[in-house]
Amino acid sequence: MEHEIALLRETELFSELTAEQIAKILSIARKVNFSEGQIIMREAEDGDTMYIILEGTVEVVKSLVMGDPDEEADEKSKVFTRLDASDHAVFGEVGLFEAMKRTATIKTVTQARFLEIKRSSFLRLTDADHELGYRVFFNLAKIVSGRLRKADEDTIKLTTALSIILRES
Amino acid sequence: MEHEIALLRETELFSELTAEQIAKILSIARKVNFSEGQIIMREAEDGDTMYIILEGTVEVVKSLVMGDPDEEADEKSKVFTRLDASDHAVFGEVGLFEAMKRTATIKTVTQARFLEIKRSSFLRLTDADHELGYRVFFNLAKIVSGRLRKADEDTIKLTTALSIILRES
Repeated sequence: MEHEIALLRETELFSELTAEQIAKILSIARKVNFSEGQIIMREAEDGDTMYIILEGTVEVVKSLVMGDPDEEADEKSKVFTRLDASDHAVFGEVGLFEAMKRTATIKTVTQARFLEIKRSSFLRLTDADHELGYRVFFNLAKIVSGRLRKADEDTIKLTTALSIILRES
Repeated sequence: MEHEIALLRETELFSELTAEQIAKILSIARKVNFSEGQIIMREAEDGDTMYIILEGTVEVVKSLVMGDPDEEADEKSKVFTRLDASDHAVFGEVGLFEAMKRTATIKTVTQARFLEIKRSSFLRLTDADHELGYRVFFNLAKIVSGRLRKADEDTIKLTTALSIILRES
């Protein structure tokens, strides 16, 4: 419990929460175990759960070009990165507050253990405790806006590359 | 006042707020007037204010390729769209909670009147009223994640276009 409280407070999502608020989050989380090579979430599928790694390593895979997201391990997919508990990694947090397709596939590369939180329990908690809800949604807005900035930069780089290639061809 | 309450409730940012909560938002907003052709915010500059159009029309301009954002009206910039009060448009809302560069230039194309909200007043209000803070940051997280989804789709389209061109050349 102490270990999990410490771990949750290290995540960006739950940063600046009090120990009591973290305990409330833990009370709606359940521990789930996955064996090696299991898919935790699949790109383009619906999802209403979020995961935090407690033990083990996962691989985050994201399609870079259009195509069937189920086609595995071809040039259309690219392994982005491997993450373990020391990265304080959280997956699927957007699923906590709205029905959105998963933007990446998460697969275990070792046996792994996660905390799983469901949207319905999470929203029940934040609706009942506005101070907690305010803090977590403040963090969520920051996390998502950081990703948006990164995505905007990528778009500009890609458009620039395209315009250079088209000019030269 | 009644008109402004109605208008604010039509925005995605302040949707589902009570009339009392909207009145609190209005109490920290000030009305500002701009003449035709004025720049409200400039891409790539810092900003800690948000604007809601009350009257008039603006143009939203965003660079599509890398380059000097100050170079105006060349092929590097593209007019995205014109917006007026009937669009319930809000600009710069990310500036309400963190120090981020503006992602577009907003320019008036008529005389225009806005509500302006500053980050410091906004955060003072949400820190004092967690229920209000929870609701607004919930909306903010949704707004930003909608934009992120759109940006991710753009990235995949651009990468696909690039890969097709590179394969054929």
